[in-house]
Amino acid sequence: MNNFEYYAPTRMIFGRDTQKNVGGIIKQYGYNKVLLHYGGGSIKKTGLYDAVKLSIRGAGVEFIELGGVEPNPKLSLVLEGDKICRENGIELVLAVGGGSVIDSAKLIAIAAKNDGDPWDFSLKKRNPTAALPIGVILTLSASGSEMSSSAVITNQDGLLKRGYSTSFHRPLFAICNPELTYTVNNFQTGCGIVDIMMHTLERYFSNSADTDLTDRIAESLIRSTIDAGRVAIGNPQDYDARATLMWASSLSHNDLTGMGRNVFMAVHQMEHELSGMYDFVAHGAGLSVLFPAWAKYVYKQNPKRFAQYAERVWGCAEGGAIEQTALEGIMRTERFFEEIGMPTRLSQLGVSGDGITEMADKCTFHGGRTLPGYIELDAAGIRAVFELAL
Amino acid sequence: MNNFEYYAPTRMIFGRDTQKNVGGIIKQYGYNKVLLHYGGGSIKKTGLYDAVKLSIRGAGVEFIELGGVEPNPKLSLVLEGDKICRENGIELVLAVGGGSVIDSAKLIAIAAKNDGDPWDFSLKKRNPTAALPIGVILTLSASGSEMSSSAVITNQDGLLKRGYSTSFHRPLFAICNPELTYTVNNFQTGCGIVDIMMHTLERYFSNSADTDLTDRIAESLIRSTIDAGRVAIGNPQDYDARATLMWASSLSHNDLTGMGRNVFMAVHQMEHELSGMYDFVAHGAGLSVLFPAWAKYVYKQNPKRFAQYAERVWGCAEGGAIEQTALEGIMRTERFFEEIGMPTRLSQLGVSGDGITEMADKCTFHGGRTLPGYIELDAAGIRAVFELAL
Repeated sequence: MNNFEYYAPTRMIFGRDTQKNVGGIIKQYGYNKVLLHYGGGSIKKTGLYDAVKLSIRGAGVEFIELGGVEPNPKLSLVLEGDKICRENGIELVLAVGGGSVIDSAKLIAIAAKNDGDPWDFSLKKRNPTAALPIGVILTLSASGSEMSSSAVITNQDGLLKRGYSTSFHRPLFAICNPELTYTVNNFQTGCGIVDIMMHTLERYFSNSADTDLTDRIAESLIRSTIDAGRVAIGNPQDYDARATLMWASSLSHNDLTGMGRNVFMAVHQMEHELSGMYDFVAHGAGLSVLFPAWAKYVYKQNPKRFAQYAERVWGCAEGGAIEQTALEGIMRTERFFEEIGMPTRLSQLGVSGDGITEMADKCTFHGGRTLPGYIELDAAGIRAVFELAL
Repeated sequence: MNNFEYYAPTRMIFGRDTQKNVGGIIKQYGYNKVLLHYGGGSIKKTGLYDAVKLSIRGAGVEFIELGGVEPNPKLSLVLEGDKICRENGIELVLAVGGGSVIDSAKLIAIAAKNDGDPWDFSLKKRNPTAALPIGVILTLSASGSEMSSSAVITNQDGLLKRGYSTSFHRPLFAICNPELTYTVNNFQTGCGIVDIMMHTLERYFSNSADTDLTDRIAESLIRSTIDAGRVAIGNPQDYDARATLMWASSLSHNDLTGMGRNVFMAVHQMEHELSGMYDFVAHGAGLSVLFPAWAKYVYKQNPKRFAQYAERVWGCAEGGAIEQTALEGIMRTERFFEEIGMPTRLSQLGVSGDGITEMADKCTFHGGRTLPGYIELDAAGIRAVFELAL
C-alpha cells in the first residue's frame, strides 16, 4: 500500500427536500452574497430555479445570476463569472446543476481570488493560493465533482480540454436530493452510470499491490452502481436507485476508491481529447467507447487484476483460465454499457478514424509526455486504443 | 434510504514515516503552541515521544506536555488539560496515542473553549459553541476516534462512562503510520479488530431499508478487517495488514458505513456500563463478549439481515433456511473472536452476574430510556443480553 493523503471535507446534505433549505445553509456559514451559477433551461422547467431563489431570498442572501454553462464548460464563461465576482464582492459561488456547472463554478471560484489568466491553472503553470467557497445543488449523478478536487474546462482556442486538481476545488457543501434527478433522461442517466463506474475503474486498474480494503470498497461501489443503474434506467423515479447513483457519484471521485494506489486516469485523458475535438460527444459516452477498447489493449499485461474484477464484480466463476476470466469481465462490462443504451464504438458516436492521429498527438502534449498507469501508453499505444474503438 | 448528512473533514496523512513531519504540518496551519497529550510510557519506549518532540521543536512550535491518559480516560485529567490550555494560550491539542488519548484530547479541546463544567457535554445537558483544533498521531487501530465525531469519557464519581458526539470533535488532521502499531500486542490488536468490526456491525444491524451501497461498503470493511486481522495477529510486523486495520479503523467510525441508516449503537451502550463498572475490562474485550450475546438475543426478529451478513461476509451458502444461515453468521463471528484470542463470555473477563441488574439500570438511565436499534431493549432485555453472555 502506498502512502496517501485523504482529504474530503465537503459537507454532504443528502436526501429528499434538502434543496429547500439552501438559503439557510448559506446563512449558517455567514455568507450574504452569492453567484447563482447554472446551465441551460432545465432547472427553470423543473421548478428548481424558482425554489432556489425563494430559499435564498427568504434567508436574506443577495445573489447575482450567471446561467448558460454548456456541456464541456468553456473558459469564456469562467472569465465572465470571474468579472462578476470581483465587481460585486461575491462571497460564495453556488452551482446548481451537474458536473459542467460545478466545474465552471470551481474555476470561477479560483479565478476570482487569483490575478492573471485562470487558464494557467488548467495548464498547471501555477497554483492558486486562495478561492471563494463553493456550494452545490446537484441535479445529475455522474461527475462526482460535488465532492472531488478536480475540474475540467475547455478552452475554445485550440479545442483544448484540461483537468486541474486542487483542494480549493472541494465544495464547502453539496446538497444532493435524488428526486432532482428523476427528470434526467435515459441517455444522460447512462452517461452518468458510466462516469461513476469509470472514476472507480480507473483507480482500480493501476499497478499497486496490497490494497485489499480499497479494492473491496471500489468493487462494492461498482456493483451497487450496476444494480441501481439497471433499476433507474427502467424506472427513472425509483428513489433508492437514484439515491444509490447519487451517493456513488460522490464517493467514486472523492478519492476513497483509490487510497493507497497509484492513480492516473488514462482513459479520462483520452476521452478529454475525444470530446475536446468532437464537442457533440458526451463525456460518459466517450468513456463507454474507450474503456472496453483500452481494457482489451492492456489486460494481458496483468490479467490477474482484471480476473479479480470479473470474479468479484461480475460473479464470473473463480479458478478458470486467468486470461479468459479477465476477458470475460471486460466483455460483461461492454455488454452492460450496451444494455443501458450506451455506445461502445466510435462509429456509434459519429466519429471516424480521421482524427485519431491528432487526438493521440494532443494527448501526449505533442510528444511531451506518455500516459502512465496500468501500462504506459505513448502516442502509438493511444492510437491503437482509439483504433480498437472504431 | 434515510436522509443523511456526511461530514468527515479530517485530513488523513497515511503511511510510513508520516509522523516525522508533524511539526511541519502543525506549522502549515499557523499554530505555534500545542498541548502534547499522551498516555503511559509506551510512546517513550518506542522512541515516538522523542521523534515527535524533535519534529515539533524543529518547526519552531512550542509545546506543553500532559501525559498520563489511562484506558477509559478520566474526566479529572480533562480538567487538568483544560486548565493548562487556558493558562498557556494553547492553540492546538496534539493527541499521540490511541482512542483514549484522542478522546481525552477531544474533551480538553472543548473544555478549553467553553466555560462551565465539561461533563455537561457528556451528559448532553448543553452543546459546545467552539473548540481548539485537534491533531492526532495514531498508535492503535481500534477506536476510529481519529476521524470520528465522538468521544467517551469516564467520570470517576459514580463510575459513569458516557459518549458525546459533535462535529467539533473531528480532528483537523490525523497522522497514521501503520509501523507505529507493530509493537501493539496480540490482545490489544484483537481488541482493536473487534472495535473496528463493531463500529461497522452496529451500523449495519439497524432496521433501515434500501441502503445497498452502504451495506456493501460495510461488508467490504468487515471482510478486509477479518483477513488483515488474522495476518496481523500471526505477524505483527506485516505492513499491509497493519495498514488495512489502520485505515479500516478510521473508515469504520467516520460515519461512512452508516449513511442512510438509523444508527444507534446498542452494544456499545451496554459495553460502556460494563467497562465503566469494571475498569479492568478493555472496551474491545467487552464488545467481543456482548456482541454475540446481543446477536443471539435479537436475530430472530429480522433474520434476513443477519443471513445477508452471513452470506456476504462469511461466505455462508445462499438459499438455505434463513434462520439457520443467520445463526451461522453469528457463530462464525464468535469463533473468529475466539480465534484471535478474544473473550466471548463475561466469566473470561472475570466478571460474574452480580452486577447485571445495576448495569442494566444504569444503561436505561435508571428507567429514563430504552435502547432503540435492531430491536428495542428495556432493562429486562438488557439483562437478558448480559445473562446470555455469562
